[in-house]
Amino acid sequence: MTRMPTAEDRFSFGLWTVGWTGVDPFGTATRPALDPWEYVGRLAELGAWGITFHDDDVVPFGSDEATREQRFGRLKDAADGAGLVIEMVTTNTFTHPVFKDGGLTSNDRGVRRFALRKILRAVDVAAWMGATTFVMWGGREGSEYDGSKDVYGALERYKEGLDTVAGYILSQGYDLRIALEPKPNEPRGDIFLPTVGHALALIAELDHADLVGLNPETGHEQMANLNYTHQLAQALWSGKLFHIDLNGQRGLKYDQDLVFGHGDLMSAFFTVDLLENGLPGHPDAPRYAGPRHFDYKPSRTEGFDGVWASAAANMETYLMLAERARAFRADPEVNKAMTYAGVTDLARPTLGPGETAAQLVASDDEVDPAVAAERDFGFVRLHQLAVRHLIG
Amino acid sequence: MTRMPTAEDRFSFGLWTVGWTGVDPFGTATRPALDPWEYVGRLAELGAWGITFHDDDVVPFGSDEATREQRFGRLKDAADGAGLVIEMVTTNTFTHPVFKDGGLTSNDRGVRRFALRKILRAVDVAAWMGATTFVMWGGREGSEYDGSKDVYGALERYKEGLDTVAGYILSQGYDLRIALEPKPNEPRGDIFLPTVGHALALIAELDHADLVGLNPETGHEQMANLNYTHQLAQALWSGKLFHIDLNGQRGLKYDQDLVFGHGDLMSAFFTVDLLENGLPGHPDAPRYAGPRHFDYKPSRTEGFDGVWASAAANMETYLMLAERARAFRADPEVNKAMTYAGVTDLARPTLGPGETAAQLVASDDEVDPAVAAERDFGFVRLHQLAVRHLIG
Amino acid sequence: MTRMPTAEDRFSFGLWTVGWTGVDPFGTATRPALDPWEYVGRLAELGAWGITFHDDDVVPFGSDEATREQRFGRLKDAADGAGLVIEMVTTNTFTHPVFKDGGLTSNDRGVRRFALRKILRAVDVAAWMGATTFVMWGGREGSEYDGSKDVYGALERYKEGLDTVAGYILSQGYDLRIALEPKPNEPRGDIFLPTVGHALALIAELDHADLVGLNPETGHEQMANLNYTHQLAQALWSGKLFHIDLNGQRGLKYDQDLVFGHGDLMSAFFTVDLLENGLPGHPDAPRYAGPRHFDYKPSRTEGFDGVWASAAANMETYLMLAERARAFRADPEVNKAMTYAGVTDLARPTLGPGETAAQLVASDDEVDPAVAAERDFGFVRLHQLAVRHLIG
Amino acid sequence: MTRMPTAEDRFSFGLWTVGWTGVDPFGTATRPALDPWEYVGRLAELGAWGITFHDDDVVPFGSDEATREQRFGRLKDAADGAGLVIEMVTTNTFTHPVFKDGGLTSNDRGVRRFALRKILRAVDVAAWMGATTFVMWGGREGSEYDGSKDVYGALERYKEGLDTVAGYILSQGYDLRIALEPKPNEPRGDIFLPTVGHALALIAELDHADLVGLNPETGHEQMANLNYTHQLAQALWSGKLFHIDLNGQRGLKYDQDLVFGHGDLMSAFFTVDLLENGLPGHPDAPRYAGPRHFDYKPSRTEGFDGVWASAAANMETYLMLAERARAFRADPEVNKAMTYAGVTDLARPTLGPGETAAQLVASDDEVDPAVAAERDFGFVRLHQLAVRHLIG
Repeated sequence: MTRMPTAEDRFSFGLWTVGWTGVDPFGTATRPALDPWEYVGRLAELGAWGITFHDDDVVPFGSDEATREQRFGRLKDAADGAGLVIEMVTTNTFTHPVFKDGGLTSNDRGVRRFALRKILRAVDVAAWMGATTFVMWGGREGSEYDGSKDVYGALERYKEGLDTVAGYILSQGYDLRIALEPKPNEPRGDIFLPTVGHALALIAELDHADLVGLNPETGHEQMANLNYTHQLAQALWSGKLFHIDLNGQRGLKYDQDLVFGHGDLMSAFFTVDLLENGLPGHPDAPRYAGPRHFDYKPSRTEGFDGVWASAAANMETYLMLAERARAFRADPEVNKAMTYAGVTDLARPTLGPGETAAQLVASDDEVDPAVAAERDFGFVRLHQLAVRHLIG
Repeated sequence: MTRMPTAEDRFSFGLWTVGWTGVDPFGTATRPALDPWEYVGRLAELGAWGITFHDDDVVPFGSDEATREQRFGRLKDAADGAGLVIEMVTTNTFTHPVFKDGGLTSNDRGVRRFALRKILRAVDVAAWMGATTFVMWGGREGSEYDGSKDVYGALERYKEGLDTVAGYILSQGYDLRIALEPKPNEPRGDIFLPTVGHALALIAELDHADLVGLNPETGHEQMANLNYTHQLAQALWSGKLFHIDLNGQRGLKYDQDLVFGHGDLMSAFFTVDLLENGLPGHPDAPRYAGPRHFDYKPSRTEGFDGVWASAAANMETYLMLAERARAFRADPEVNKAMTYAGVTDLARPTLGPGETAAQLVASDDEVDPAVAAERDFGFVRLHQLAVRHLIG
Repeated sequence: MTRMPTAEDRFSFGLWTVGWTGVDPFGTATRPALDPWEYVGRLAELGAWGITFHDDDVVPFGSDEATREQRFGRLKDAADGAGLVIEMVTTNTFTHPVFKDGGLTSNDRGVRRFALRKILRAVDVAAWMGATTFVMWGGREGSEYDGSKDVYGALERYKEGLDTVAGYILSQGYDLRIALEPKPNEPRGDIFLPTVGHALALIAELDHADLVGLNPETGHEQMANLNYTHQLAQALWSGKLFHIDLNGQRGLKYDQDLVFGHGDLMSAFFTVDLLENGLPGHPDAPRYAGPRHFDYKPSRTEGFDGVWASAAANMETYLMLAERARAFRADPEVNKAMTYAGVTDLARPTLGPGETAAQLVASDDEVDPAVAAERDFGFVRLHQLAVRHLIG
Repeated sequence: MTRMPTAEDRFSFGLWTVGWTGVDPFGTATRPALDPWEYVGRLAELGAWGITFHDDDVVPFGSDEATREQRFGRLKDAADGAGLVIEMVTTNTFTHPVFKDGGLTSNDRGVRRFALRKILRAVDVAAWMGATTFVMWGGREGSEYDGSKDVYGALERYKEGLDTVAGYILSQGYDLRIALEPKPNEPRGDIFLPTVGHALALIAELDHADLVGLNPETGHEQMANLNYTHQLAQALWSGKLFHIDLNGQRGLKYDQDLVFGHGDLMSAFFTVDLLENGLPGHPDAPRYAGPRHFDYKPSRTEGFDGVWASAAANMETYLMLAERARAFRADPEVNKAMTYAGVTDLARPTLGPGETAAQLVASDDEVDPAVAAERDFGFVRLHQLAVRHLIG
């Protein structure tokens, strides 16, 4: 049996995950919605350390100020009472019909202003709650038809929105960073910022780029046919891995939001390896030190028993994988195979110290390609060692 | 009948396109390889303006200096004789077995140095040929197994390589820009820089970022389940659309390299619309002014008749689409529908001049979301107008 | 301008298409639901010939007998009044939570019995309405986790259900045929009968196979990465193309249900070519003579103006494609290219009349493979003729 | 450590797997080709029980009769000497350019006759070798352009070819069965018989259907976005699981042919569970009793060390998964969870003995849907038990 999770593990859950009622495009709710504070105690019992939420998860869209204060306060009290950190807050700019063509990039300026206001108010909530990350998922920022959207203008407006929000955070002195969450499609045919790469590219153009990073979600990157662990590595390399959304996806289809590890299990192993053990050969490289946040949906075939079993399954799977990943890295045979494969060689510069391009061309150390081509890299053997550590 | 292409159209072809012999993973060549200069005359007759090539398309890998000079010279003479511009040159760091684990990011430092030398030598060739773009496709920079590659180190080495090449270009005073070509997979299981976004994100970290941009290929972005025209728009927005590779792809499978327009025809229409007509509502935004370069493969069911027919088909389809795109943009009904849909509204800032976040929150122009949600955007009608212009 | 559709075109619409309110996994309704009979008049005005519906589209789940009679009657009256045929009826065994693990293949026998009863009652409705096709889409028949479903047993139960329904139709003397609608996933992770092929394979094992055929949907087959027109051709070849669901899909993602032709336009052209012109070289092969049924969703960015514009767009696009397909087939240059490509040669048996395998091996007509391999098939040229007919 | 494989495990390998030289669309060979008999000894040492091959793997295309006899004989001797069974033989109708538009369904009748002869000759070889399965993979039977192929005629010709081959096997009294191998694409844009379903549908129309079954390949079905274990279950249900090709694939891309288990590991677990433990609740259902055949490619980054390590990895992974699958099925907690989930309930008919449709409708056991909808199926918990057995 795997050990119980503890606060040191920093596992956190969106309220909308255990709170999902099971509405999907072809079916109505299979579970009732509880009040947001009703999920808190059970999550704490299961070993979670933190919770997160969208503004509308706690306070119905359009509520008055008194209701907002009352409900946000009650949730904060419940979290405090249960010993749970509210580590991240986000805004919902996708559910209400007013956002049907997006928020920050709606073709309707009135809607854009409405969305920006809603985001700014949620920033205040995040700060008040003590959250340190403010996630922005622009799920409706996109289009179905190429002619219906000025993508250049949409990126201008995205930048304007992010600059405004980041500037507001600075002006208020909040201890908050923004984390963008990419997704390639669903609910729009094509979403702007479809992958980690696109979000990094946008961030590079921002006025307050330091304040803005990423919240990559396992399934979202996989819906763009990409390797999730590679995405995390590039985000780390750009110094932008601010937060993560762990879950499971089985191939190119609708967004499944399965339990972490219930999608591509081998990929999940290497994700955990990266998060827990860092990069091989880069002891000084940035490490991810944030929460292990799960953004999943308990299958709608389940009742509340299944809701809690699935919440626990995310943490259990993570811990099992972490244990195996540590053993994998500690295994001398693995280390020998990694050296044989040249994995750590990539940390060595290609040029010598101070060597120039001209010197490289003129230097006399050129390998004989016919000989170098003979090298057996041993990648399959190394991978089989991972398989053995995982299931052996 | 569509008119013949002219030099003003700036159509160009890789020698490896018409020169593809039809070797695929399950079959041997169905057509012989000609000498590179033998393709030039026919391309000129068909209306092409330029050609491009990999170093190894012209000079066999490992040739001595004399052979290089003789063959590069003969190709240049042939191009000059036919009135064709050599607009782009690129290096092959993927075919020879020495590159089986990549070039700039091979796990073998000797191979990395070998690859970097080969690239630098090809830069000299590009400059000598008068090319203005140097494309870099890192087709073997990637992995099949997560444990076999230090992705962080690989990005370090990619940056080192690009900084070195760009620095060399500057030091030599060459009139050349580098254009990275992303691809998500094939021939590696996962390629680094899988999409336009990831390449933009890497460029943002380079020492000589100004010199490095993109060469997005239609099919490559579609293999990452992305909208190609959106990729072009983001590259333009980042000021990085240096070159393009037009072709056709039918869904998520192997890299098909079909004739442009023989993949997703409606998407091709909007690609041409963007290239020819620029962004709606942004008269001052950057426009793509480079070559219309085709990177396709004549199906291996075809003989040389089919090779030339397919080369011509790329240009003919482009011209037909350009004609339709111009009529689409000029149509008053289309313009009315675009205004109705709010397409040009995205060029308007969301905030007023000088307006701050605090002022936005406090301002009294907030829309009633219930009312704003009623808006009919007319996106389907607008799209149907595109369909009518395309096939009506 | 394309002509108005007429009854001869046999265009039909599901009430759930124009009636879709826009609920999706991340958003609530953007349009109100009208009463089912309120959609009928406008569809007739636009040129539709028929309508179709799920039982629950007309009568809320769980209604009593009186309500059923009243509402079904009212819809029938409305259709009659508008001159619309009710050509197909289907059952909803997916929306209500009782079906969360499927209907005919639920792991709960009580639910299976409930589902089968609901289907049988809908068969009575179909017959009463004068429909000639009864579609069965088993959208919830599937699983997310391999261990949670006995697929062998599920196929047994599927067969039992279909045999029961077909037997009931025969016993009642109804003039009805069953058409199965395959789909690979969504709302389940993996749906049984994921493609046309799998449904044909199931039908081959049925007691009353003659009564059961297919209703292939454009987007569903494309979600399995397949060529829709090839699916129609195989269904025709098996004598099982009983009904069709036309719509649009843009790649491997959630089920988009776009307007027909707003997905892969070139594929839509060849679909219409097959439906309108039949198979080249097989004048006596079975032709599809059923309705041209659209199963699409008006984008949720649209109000009712967009609903009707999108309904009309389906028919208009079909008619435009039909016109182009007829001209394509009538074009002597196309026919010459088809002959050159050997397209019609496939109608010729490979063996001579009465020739045996042994005779084939011994016969002296063997081609020289080196020579036969030289043949230029001209497929690209033929395809470019299609492009010209489509957009030229 | 996992035990060594033995003959009882019935592991077999295609000679083309360990013999793959690493040619891919963008690279030349990274390993030399050995003579076919040189692979045999090492496979036997590693614990393989059998081998398989294409005719052209052993005898170069176009060889004369003497060469055929000499080389086939030498291979047979080598296999006998090493104690390896030649369990399956297949024909190559895809590598030589003569097959560029297919074999049995080429648009050129001369090619079709040539292909059919080649297949018949390979059938003789298979029988002579003592093989009991003759696999037919129609990798070139397909098209890139819808207009270039008469799919109806192609299915006619496929049927004619299969009827001829099956008739020949019967007439010769060979103890051989045909196993079709579906694939959705690559090397053709769309291949006929893209999935298990389509092949089953074709078989249902054959004259000698009893003699023809399936050889489903893991990666091929996954390239159609399908669940491989579901495919095996449907093939079993139709009595057509004659042979299998196990390997690994990571999502929708080119055909990767990774080591079994190096693709989707959780799916591989359930595949092995089905093969080793049969169907839950169907003790009398057909079981797969054939070889465990691996159709994979040693990554081209590897030398011969990696070739043999990868061959061993296939068997090792299978044995590890088999051990875990047995423990999973034997675990009382798993059995309790399966009962709770209703998995075995699917073996129970929905109707009572002799119950008719009319009786069902009239019976008084109807569940209250509101109550039945409350059921917690416990699917996630059951799946987490599988995860624990796999990696715990």
